[in-house]
Amino acid sequence: MSYKTLTRQDIDFVTSVCGPENVICDDAIHEDFSHDELGDLHRFPELLVYPADTRQISNIMKYANDNLIAVTPRGQGTGLVGGAVAVHGGIMISTARMNKIIELDHENLTLTVEPGVLLMEIAAYVESFDLFYPPDPGEKSASIGGNISTNAGGMRAVKYGVTRDYIRALEVVLPDGEVAWFGGKTVKNSSGYSLKDLIVGSEGTLGIVTRAILRLLPKPAKAISLLVPFPDLEKAIETVPLIIMAKATPTAIEYMERAVIENSEDFLGKKFPDSSADAYLLLTFDGQTREDIEKDYEKIAHICLQQGALDVLISDTQERQEMIWSARGAFLEAIKASTTEMDECDVVVPRNRVAEFVRFTRTIEAEESLRIRSFGHAGDGNLHVYLLRDDLSREVFRERLQRSFERLYNKAAELGGQVSGEHGIGFAKRPFLEAIAGKTQLNLMRQIKRAFDPNNILNPGKVIV
Amino acid sequence: MSYKTLTRQDIDFVTSVCGPENVICDDAIHEDFSHDELGDLHRFPELLVYPADTRQISNIMKYANDNLIAVTPRGQGTGLVGGAVAVHGGIMISTARMNKIIELDHENLTLTVEPGVLLMEIAAYVESFDLFYPPDPGEKSASIGGNISTNAGGMRAVKYGVTRDYIRALEVVLPDGEVAWFGGKTVKNSSGYSLKDLIVGSEGTLGIVTRAILRLLPKPAKAISLLVPFPDLEKAIETVPLIIMAKATPTAIEYMERAVIENSEDFLGKKFPDSSADAYLLLTFDGQTREDIEKDYEKIAHICLQQGALDVLISDTQERQEMIWSARGAFLEAIKASTTEMDECDVVVPRNRVAEFVRFTRTIEAEESLRIRSFGHAGDGNLHVYLLRDDLSREVFRERLQRSFERLYNKAAELGGQVSGEHGIGFAKRPFLEAIAGKTQLNLMRQIKRAFDPNNILNPGKVIV
Repeated sequence: MSYKTLTRQDIDFVTSVCGPENVICDDAIHEDFSHDELGDLHRFPELLVYPADTRQISNIMKYANDNLIAVTPRGQGTGLVGGAVAVHGGIMISTARMNKIIELDHENLTLTVEPGVLLMEIAAYVESFDLFYPPDPGEKSASIGGNISTNAGGMRAVKYGVTRDYIRALEVVLPDGEVAWFGGKTVKNSSGYSLKDLIVGSEGTLGIVTRAILRLLPKPAKAISLLVPFPDLEKAIETVPLIIMAKATPTAIEYMERAVIENSEDFLGKKFPDSSADAYLLLTFDGQTREDIEKDYEKIAHICLQQGALDVLISDTQERQEMIWSARGAFLEAIKASTTEMDECDVVVPRNRVAEFVRFTRTIEAEESLRIRSFGHAGDGNLHVYLLRDDLSREVFRERLQRSFERLYNKAAELGGQVSGEHGIGFAKRPFLEAIAGKTQLNLMRQIKRAFDPNNILNPGKVIV
Repeated sequence: MSYKTLTRQDIDFVTSVCGPENVICDDAIHEDFSHDELGDLHRFPELLVYPADTRQISNIMKYANDNLIAVTPRGQGTGLVGGAVAVHGGIMISTARMNKIIELDHENLTLTVEPGVLLMEIAAYVESFDLFYPPDPGEKSASIGGNISTNAGGMRAVKYGVTRDYIRALEVVLPDGEVAWFGGKTVKNSSGYSLKDLIVGSEGTLGIVTRAILRLLPKPAKAISLLVPFPDLEKAIETVPLIIMAKATPTAIEYMERAVIENSEDFLGKKFPDSSADAYLLLTFDGQTREDIEKDYEKIAHICLQQGALDVLISDTQERQEMIWSARGAFLEAIKASTTEMDECDVVVPRNRVAEFVRFTRTIEAEESLRIRSFGHAGDGNLHVYLLRDDLSREVFRERLQRSFERLYNKAAELGGQVSGEHGIGFAKRPFLEAIAGKTQLNLMRQIKRAFDPNNILNPGKVIV
C-alpha cells in the first residue's frame, strides 16, 4: 500500500479546517509523537493536528480518504504496542484538545465525554458526585479514547469487568468522514449487529471515537486492601483459584515479587510497607458497608493462611492503601528505570493457569538468558511480562526477545489464552496475532477492516493487514 | 435471491450426516416449526434436521453453501420477530439435541454448554453449586443459543447487565462450514476485533453457535422483593429515575398495571397478593447478607412513599416471592389469552424516558383505536408493548398495527431509544430498523453480513438484507 506524501496543498487544507495554531509540520513536531511508551518503533507523522470537534475530524477524514493519505489517531500516546505511531507517515490526529466532559446524566447514570479526557479526570469528576467509573488501568494519564481503543482492563476487572462493559454508546467518525452514533443511553440493545462492540478494542483502525457515553455505578462507600506475604510466588499465585472458588468477590487480585517491589522502592524513594517476603498478593474488597466486605475478606484471609501465607496485613486507612497502591502503580516505570531497554508481553490466560505461565517465564529466563520481570492481574489472568535488555547488545537482545516472545505467546495459546489482555495488538504484536488467531478469524477481521475502511487509510499497519 | 429447492439428493446428504431418525421432511414437519411465538408469519422449512454435534452442523453448512440452500437455525422457537422461521424454505437446523452441559469450571467460574440447553436448566444446574447465571429473560424455556442470538436481557439487567456481559467465548460454525472459537475463558481480551461480540445479537445470521462458555457469579444468598402499589402508572414510572439517582442498586425494577395483572389472575387462576391499586412497581434486591440489602431497600421504600406510593409490601419469603413473580412471568401468555391476536413492540429507551413513552402508548391507543397493554423493565427502559386485535377484522388490525408501530418506533428513536431491547429484529422488525438505524449503519451491517456469508444462505431475510 502506498500513501500520498503530503503537499503544501494538503497542509493548507488541514490548516483551513483547524486553524494554523493547531497544525504542526515536519521538523516542528516534538520527538514524543514519533513513538509511544515502549519499544523501538520510531516514525514521525508528516503533520500533527489538534482538531477541536467532530466536524473537523470528519472534514480531515473525508479529505484524507479522497486523497489516499494515511491517518493515525492518537490519544496520550501511553500505548505499548505502537498503535499510535504513524508507521506510514501522513496525518496524526491528536484528540488532546477534545477533552471536555459534556454531560453527567444522574437519571441514567451515564457520563458523556470527548475522547481526550484523561482517565484520572473521569475518576475525580464522577467521584465528586459519589459515582464510580470502574475500569482502572494502571496508566491514569491515558485518555478515555485510548482506553476504548484497546478495551483497557485494569485492576478491577475481577469484579467489575473491562472498558467494554462500561461503554453505552460511541460517536465515531468513519474513514470516509461519515459520522455515526453506535448504541445509546439504553441499558439493553438488540437492534442489529453491535457496531459499538466492534469499535471497542479496534485500536483506531475502524473509526475515530469522538464522543463516548460511559456507564457509571454508585461509588462503593468502603474499600479495604489486604496485603498478603507468601514464602514464594508459586504459593501466592496458586492461592488465587481457591479464592475464586470460595465465591468471595474481590475487586482486584494483584501479584507482585520482591524484586519488582525493590525496583519500585528505588524508583519512588519510598519504602513498601512490608519486606518480610519474596512474593505478595494484593487484594481489595469494596462495598457499601464495612459488614458487606468483612465476611468476604475474613474468608479469604483464612484461605491465604491455610495456603501458607506468612501474614495478612489489612489496610483500611486511605493513607496505608495509597502507600501500597502507589508502589503498585509505579511498577512499569520502575522496571523500565532498572534497565537499558525493555519490551513487554501482555498475555491473558484463564485465571487458573497463571501459575503455570509464570513458571514458564522462569524457564524462558533461564534458557534464553534474558532477565524477565512480571507482575499483574492474577485475579483475571492478565500478566504483564517484561523482558529486559540490561547490558546485552541491541542485536543480541532483539534476537533473544523475538525467540522468547514466540515461546511465550505459543504457551499462552496452549493454555487457552490470548495474545493481549488489554494493551492491544497495534503494530508490534501483529505477527503474534497472525500466528495464533487462525486463518478464519484473521480473514473475517480483514474483511471487517475492508468494510469500514476500503482505502485502508485509517491507522494502517495496525491490528490486521 | 433465489435458493435451491431441495432435491432427493440433498435430503440424502443431510440424512447421511445426521441419520434418518434425525431428519424430517415436508409434510411430516410439525406445524410448530412453521412459525414462532407471535405474529402471523408462517412458512415451513423443506427439511428439519436435528444434528448431534458441531461436526454435523459444519458438514451441513458446507453442503448448503456449496449448493445455495437456505439454512435457518432454530432453538426453542420462543422468539417474537420471526427470527427462527424459514422464510426462504430450505433446511431448518434445530439445536434441540445439542443440549448437554459440558463443563462447570469452578476455578474460572465458567459453564460450557451446548446451544440447546434451556435457560431454566442452566439456572437450576448452577444454583445447585451455589453459583448464578444472572441473565433472566421471562421465557425460561428458551434455549441459551436463542438467548445469545438476540442478546436477551431480562429482569436483572438493571444490576447485572445482559447476555452479552456473560459470554466469555463462543464456538461458531460459519456459513461455509468453517468452525472457529471466538474469545476464551479469559476475563480480558484485546486481541483484534471482537468477533464474539459480533455474533452475540446477530440472530443466527453470521454463524451458528455450537458451544458457549458462560461467565458465572457466586449466587447471592439473600433476595427480597418489594411490591409497591401506586395510585397510577405515571406516578409509578416517574419514581424510577429517582430510585436510580438514589444510588441504590436494585436487581430488577418492573412495572405493571391492574389490567395486566387481572389477565394474569384469569390465566393462572391465582390471585395476585394485592389488589389495592391501578399500578405497581416490583423491585428486587439481592446480596450476600440481609444487612447488605436492607439499607438499600429501606432507602427506596422511603422514596416510593414520598412519591405517593400507597404502601410498600415486603416479600422476603420464597413463597410470597414466587406468588408475585409467577404472575409477572405469565403476563405475555395472559395478554395473549385475552385477545384473538397480538403483535408486540420491544422498544428500549433511556430509563428516564419510560414514563413519556408509556404516555405515548395511551395516545396511540386512543388515536388509532387499538387496545394496547404494556409491562416491562422500567429499571432498564425496556418496554414490552402489546397491540391487541380483539374483534377487529384482520385487515383493519394490520392497518392500524402498521401505523401504530411506525409511530411507536419513531417515538422511541426521538427519545434516544432503539428498535429492540432484547427480542431482536428478525424478519418482522426489519423495516423499522431500516427506517431508524440510518444509511451508514445499515451499510456497515450489510457488509459485515457479506463478509461472513457471501452467498447469503444463513438465516436469509433476517436483520439485514
